[in-house]
Amino acid sequence: MLNELKNIAEKINRIILNDDFPSIIEPSYLRGTVLDYPGRGGKRLRPALLCWCCAMLGGDIKKALYPAAAAEIYHNWTLVHDDIIDEDDVRRGLPSAHASLAKYARSNFKVISSGAGKFGRDFAMLAGDIQQGWAANTLLKAADHGLSPELTIALSRRMQELVTRELISGEALDVEFPMRGINNVTSRELLDMLYLKTGALLRFCAEAGTAIALESTDFDRPEIRKLGDFASTAGIAFQLRDDWLGVFGNFSKFGKTLGSDLAEGKPTLLLLKACEALEPYKRSRLLGLIGLKNYSMDVIEEARELFIESGAEEYVRRKSEHLADESKAILKEFPENQYRSWLLELTDYLVHRDK
Amino acid sequence: MLNELKNIAEKINRIILNDDFPSIIEPSYLRGTVLDYPGRGGKRLRPALLCWCCAMLGGDIKKALYPAAAAEIYHNWTLVHDDIIDEDDVRRGLPSAHASLAKYARSNFKVISSGAGKFGRDFAMLAGDIQQGWAANTLLKAADHGLSPELTIALSRRMQELVTRELISGEALDVEFPMRGINNVTSRELLDMLYLKTGALLRFCAEAGTAIALESTDFDRPEIRKLGDFASTAGIAFQLRDDWLGVFGNFSKFGKTLGSDLAEGKPTLLLLKACEALEPYKRSRLLGLIGLKNYSMDVIEEARELFIESGAEEYVRRKSEHLADESKAILKEFPENQYRSWLLELTDYLVHRDK
Repeated sequence: MLNELKNIAEKINRIILNDDFPSIIEPSYLRGTVLDYPGRGGKRLRPALLCWCCAMLGGDIKKALYPAAAAEIYHNWTLVHDDIIDEDDVRRGLPSAHASLAKYARSNFKVISSGAGKFGRDFAMLAGDIQQGWAANTLLKAADHGLSPELTIALSRRMQELVTRELISGEALDVEFPMRGINNVTSRELLDMLYLKTGALLRFCAEAGTAIALESTDFDRPEIRKLGDFASTAGIAFQLRDDWLGVFGNFSKFGKTLGSDLAEGKPTLLLLKACEALEPYKRSRLLGLIGLKNYSMDVIEEARELFIESGAEEYVRRKSEHLADESKAILKEFPENQYRSWLLELTDYLVHRDK
Repeated sequence: MLNELKNIAEKINRIILNDDFPSIIEPSYLRGTVLDYPGRGGKRLRPALLCWCCAMLGGDIKKALYPAAAAEIYHNWTLVHDDIIDEDDVRRGLPSAHASLAKYARSNFKVISSGAGKFGRDFAMLAGDIQQGWAANTLLKAADHGLSPELTIALSRRMQELVTRELISGEALDVEFPMRGINNVTSRELLDMLYLKTGALLRFCAEAGTAIALESTDFDRPEIRKLGDFASTAGIAFQLRDDWLGVFGNFSKFGKTLGSDLAEGKPTLLLLKACEALEPYKRSRLLGLIGLKNYSMDVIEEARELFIESGAEEYVRRKSEHLADESKAILKEFPENQYRSWLLELTDYLVHRDK
């Protein structure tokens, strides 16, 4: 499956890196930023999901490639804007878009430090704006690569009506929750937010692949709905696993990121469930571990004990496993073939990875 | 013509205000921001341009309404992101998007002042992101309102390939120029920037209206190219007139905005031309009038004298008039009818307004 994943990634990289859309962007360093994240590689999981859903139902992967590349570019613009919001200076081991641009401004214009930061944020915002248009345009190009104009329009509308609305609503709620404070966010609200933020684009990928195979513009068709459910459910399982690994992961593998959710005071399901279950004294001990500057192994251990004692650790681990099983059960309703196997393996790979 | 403009505005307002796209956006104040600028009205010049180009060539205005509404929504997302970049707290006499959202954060979350500012900028960025998707989606809906799928795709691609790339490149250069400093920007570069930032969306509107009338997806057709040139040329004429009015406008009408380009040190054509022509002593006198805190009538008068003496005032005024004439000459190549008259009047109205 991992070899097949590489195969898809190569096809997608070829489309993205050879596309003429970014060519005339000015100034050149803005063009560089537009190309930066999409060119950094990554596993291209979303394209694989889209292509394999298509192929599992007998569709032609060639027709799915432009929509798959569009989903990947779309994913990247959301990362650029997310990094601005989260003030993350690193993305996949390299400087984030706004951090690179701020450095550029410091070297090339006589700006003071805060001016460089603002320049970096402003230009990264514009780069993401262009990437959003690039994603939409790449999807429209599917009409030149075997998709009917009607289906191209239907997929394009679905991308806007499903992904843009839901994903950005999810992102907004993710920013709002820490501001509300942990006491004012319920675990239901948190799961709904994950459904929007993580689920929407994955749902789109599965729906698009299925719609291409069936040559259907009806997103209420059972196959499209079911595979959409498969993908968004798997996405939430993955996200919960990620939150769990953020505290219970292997220190040598997770390194500095262990405890980063605690450092940020991010209302994860783990934290909300623990706060709901712990008695007041232990609850305030746990809350006392939030927002520290450094997380030594001792602090992590104390947090782990409280999460385990409250039952939150088990709840989140099982919830993630349960959702992964649920998503795989949906997949198993479809005819058995190699693409279905790869999708099952992909789901396991995401949910059972330990780093 | 102004009555007909109102007529178009009403039709566009009906589409924008009744569209279901914003309905499911969460949280509700983000939905409110998405609806805010598009609902504030304005003259809807871009929709009128699109509809009248269509009607002038015998096309059905009804088919042009969704593309026209899309252009208006598109214009509004660029304003939301521009206001963040320019740190403008007011838009059409009301708080700008990020300023409203910062106020919301101060009232509803326990955030310190800088946190509220960041919240405002982050959420306004997300609101603009959704509006960009809303604009793309509104254009795609044209296929449900009389446009062929092929033409809908062609217009959608044109919006991304022309407007998104060029307009945002223009916006980026507009941010870069003041950082380079006045000595490092040429008047050619400035005009090229205006062509991108102001011209691209207007060109798209004229092209789209024409393409709908001709039912053509070929943007190289002479009618489409010519009317695109008409619109972008008129846009630059308008922008130069605007810069001129920023110094030579009537003080009682322009009020506080008189001198604001000087206050910001914005490299306008007026300033660049004056710097090119003035002798060193007078040049440094003019540069000494840049970036002041207040612009009294005395300071404005001194700047005016230097602009007149250098010939820059005459150059910019004539350049604006010349471009307006050029754009009207293109229009006059088309058959005479009421729509052509309104487009001519619209051009005069924009370029000869004194406030």
